[in-house]
Amino acid sequence: MAVQWSGLTPATFIQLDRQSPDALGSQLQNALRTAVREGRLRTGERLPSSRRLAVDLGVSRGLVQATYEQLEAEGYLRAVGGSATRVAFSPQAAVVTPPKRTPAARMEIDFAPGRPDLNSFPARDWLWACGEAARTAAARDLGYGDPQGSIRLREVIASYLQRVRGAFAGADDVVICNGFTQGAVLTLAALRAAGATSVAVEDPGHLDMPVLVRRAGLNPVFIPVDDRGLVVDDLARTKATAVIVTPAHQAPTGVVLTPDRRLALLQWAEQVNGVVIEDDYDSEFRYDKQSVGSLQGLAADRVVSIGSVSKSLAPAIRLGWVLVPRHLRARIAEDKRRSDRGSPTLDQLALARLMESGRFDRHLRRMRGVYAARRNELVEAIGQHAPDLVLTGLAAGFHAIAQLPEGANEVEIVDAAAQRSVGLQGLGRYRSPNSEGPPGIVFGFGDVNQDAIRRGIAAIGDLLRQG
Amino acid sequence: MAVQWSGLTPATFIQLDRQSPDALGSQLQNALRTAVREGRLRTGERLPSSRRLAVDLGVSRGLVQATYEQLEAEGYLRAVGGSATRVAFSPQAAVVTPPKRTPAARMEIDFAPGRPDLNSFPARDWLWACGEAARTAAARDLGYGDPQGSIRLREVIASYLQRVRGAFAGADDVVICNGFTQGAVLTLAALRAAGATSVAVEDPGHLDMPVLVRRAGLNPVFIPVDDRGLVVDDLARTKATAVIVTPAHQAPTGVVLTPDRRLALLQWAEQVNGVVIEDDYDSEFRYDKQSVGSLQGLAADRVVSIGSVSKSLAPAIRLGWVLVPRHLRARIAEDKRRSDRGSPTLDQLALARLMESGRFDRHLRRMRGVYAARRNELVEAIGQHAPDLVLTGLAAGFHAIAQLPEGANEVEIVDAAAQRSVGLQGLGRYRSPNSEGPPGIVFGFGDVNQDAIRRGIAAIGDLLRQG
Repeated sequence: MAVQWSGLTPATFIQLDRQSPDALGSQLQNALRTAVREGRLRTGERLPSSRRLAVDLGVSRGLVQATYEQLEAEGYLRAVGGSATRVAFSPQAAVVTPPKRTPAARMEIDFAPGRPDLNSFPARDWLWACGEAARTAAARDLGYGDPQGSIRLREVIASYLQRVRGAFAGADDVVICNGFTQGAVLTLAALRAAGATSVAVEDPGHLDMPVLVRRAGLNPVFIPVDDRGLVVDDLARTKATAVIVTPAHQAPTGVVLTPDRRLALLQWAEQVNGVVIEDDYDSEFRYDKQSVGSLQGLAADRVVSIGSVSKSLAPAIRLGWVLVPRHLRARIAEDKRRSDRGSPTLDQLALARLMESGRFDRHLRRMRGVYAARRNELVEAIGQHAPDLVLTGLAAGFHAIAQLPEGANEVEIVDAAAQRSVGLQGLGRYRSPNSEGPPGIVFGFGDVNQDAIRRGIAAIGDLLRQG
Repeated sequence: MAVQWSGLTPATFIQLDRQSPDALGSQLQNALRTAVREGRLRTGERLPSSRRLAVDLGVSRGLVQATYEQLEAEGYLRAVGGSATRVAFSPQAAVVTPPKRTPAARMEIDFAPGRPDLNSFPARDWLWACGEAARTAAARDLGYGDPQGSIRLREVIASYLQRVRGAFAGADDVVICNGFTQGAVLTLAALRAAGATSVAVEDPGHLDMPVLVRRAGLNPVFIPVDDRGLVVDDLARTKATAVIVTPAHQAPTGVVLTPDRRLALLQWAEQVNGVVIEDDYDSEFRYDKQSVGSLQGLAADRVVSIGSVSKSLAPAIRLGWVLVPRHLRARIAEDKRRSDRGSPTLDQLALARLMESGRFDRHLRRMRGVYAARRNELVEAIGQHAPDLVLTGLAAGFHAIAQLPEGANEVEIVDAAAQRSVGLQGLGRYRSPNSEGPPGIVFGFGDVNQDAIRRGIAAIGDLLRQG
């Protein structure tokens, strides 16, 4: 049914659908709101009387009156004098232009690093844990929780990290956050508030780090990484009083920070009264032997250690933790509160249950097997299709580096592989603008199954051999 | 079993527990790490040979060797020459002093506002929705999601807010966040980046608002609220180019912003090229009639509307949304990405399912009944025990104001009620330092059941009558 207010107003159409689950009053309200927004009804314009509109639409006068009153309360209409209802406000019609989406071309086989095997997410265990959490949560657990994190999860995390990572922390030293990024944002903000001005980052290193440092109002300083990890001597020549490092498995080179460098790093931190931010991102997965323990365990008052379940479970969970030295704790916990009033409590309780129950460990054991097989598949496939290529960084995690011969053009190889729908990343994109280094390709194999690894390497073998 | 290295080193005890589920190697590692951390083994100190320690502890020599190697890799020990193993690093022992916790005295009956009925959380529906989300999630949903929020949830939220709040938004206009606080932090950061310097807040108003404004590097400007809501004329006399308001049910006075003030506010925003930040915090619950629609619906290019499920479901869920005008959208979405790489995807998908399925609406209908009954109970109890007291702000939400007679001392009443284990809040704590206004008591009844309301008011009736 349509009504036209010819004579009274510009042509305006109101469509009421009696089959719709939406009430007629709600439909009428929305139609009038839309007419105002779109400029079909303009400021000052007079609406038909409620009696007339009711007759035209075949609805009760009360319904029209209630609609007018509602829209008067909201500021769309106003009653003038005793009877007339006019449009109170017509904003500039917002031009609705859906933004252009330019999705990245999706690769058939994508060796992007940093992604765990998403098909192996233990959905059943996670749901079980969610159920346990919801079932056992007290009413007060459903309110605004401790912004530092649920004490239950903090206790479980502290004990887990002590057992598995050689960390040195009690529940009070743990701040629960929404993954590594938030943990780093909170830590950098605390360092800045404490007077820091420059924070060192690894070069090559994760692309996000200098951006995070800058957004915290700090100056990123790039420190080279060699085959023994971060070059601490270079760090000591800068003004930085903090550094973000990936000691267990450097991102992206895969190098494990050597023992003497670990000690030199901590001594540097003592000397400059500084802080080491440890990104403990994929240390759960080491193949040749036990993972190298957390740097935090050596110097709990100098190291902020940040971990998450993004690699061990899935990024979609968005839970992580920060082990915080005492002098920064109040600041970081308060900043977490002011950022988002704490991470979701039910998710935190679910993660605590998952870890306590042994299901988390069981999942990690299973995944170690999955990733070890993929790692072997990658080594074999490269050995078969590009036998001269040297793979490094294979001790842990789920990415490795193929070292290209000097002079090889990694960008061309990446582009040519993309033409064949195989996604690769060159080492160069992880370097700071002014640094150079030997060319290489980063192979992430976390979310690529064995068959895809075999097919992917076979498809680009000639490119890798040319390199 | 204990071993003492008398002669070789200071007395050091290593306890191995063969009944423990922890492997012996792990126990030995932890014992040595702890001895180093606590200064019982100091830098340079020589450890017993692996052969000797193995004999003393009754374990295999290989286990001790592996332990030494692990701790060398981690930087605790170092191999010197061919055979000797020494302590590489002993940090200052961190003095472990558990921080004093000073929990707020828990009231037997607490009329604190801002808390929904936590006992009514629809745990079964939420778990059902989590199950549906996990069951139907594609593998790619488990990775790092769209930091602006799952498109599925954004579509559901946009359509929900259009239907229930008269909002004017498509999925592209929605940014999913972790509740109101994060939404406000993101919005304020975007405004500051766009050049804003001063942001107005309501006085009296929520205590967190000026803090959030200051932490964003902006200057809070306090604007009085009278019985028609924010005094827009006063706002226009300031330098503020943005304002945070609670139009549907002012926090804490409960006043509904009048239609003319709504229009004046939007006209002010047009004139100063400014932004209105709408805290749409408990608009789901209105008792006398339909809720006043969102201000955002009137001027989608001028209003940032922030909502969450903290009042409709529970704060522990930590999910909310921001309806963002187009000129701020890219900035806010990017800032969300840089803050925490997006909200938890599985939770987002669960909320989308809960809303699509009709279970969310059903819960709201049920809660409207629950809160209406509590509201009536409060009105009756006050009528019985302090009949001269005027209650205002009752049209919506789950808090109201008891207006005290001029000269009444609200602080004394609050303190005296606390002595009887009844938690109250004076209106004064919501006022800016330099403002004054008539005394009043805020009664939150969201998380207080009818019986407790009756008993609570009965217990303090004499105080309210004195007031």
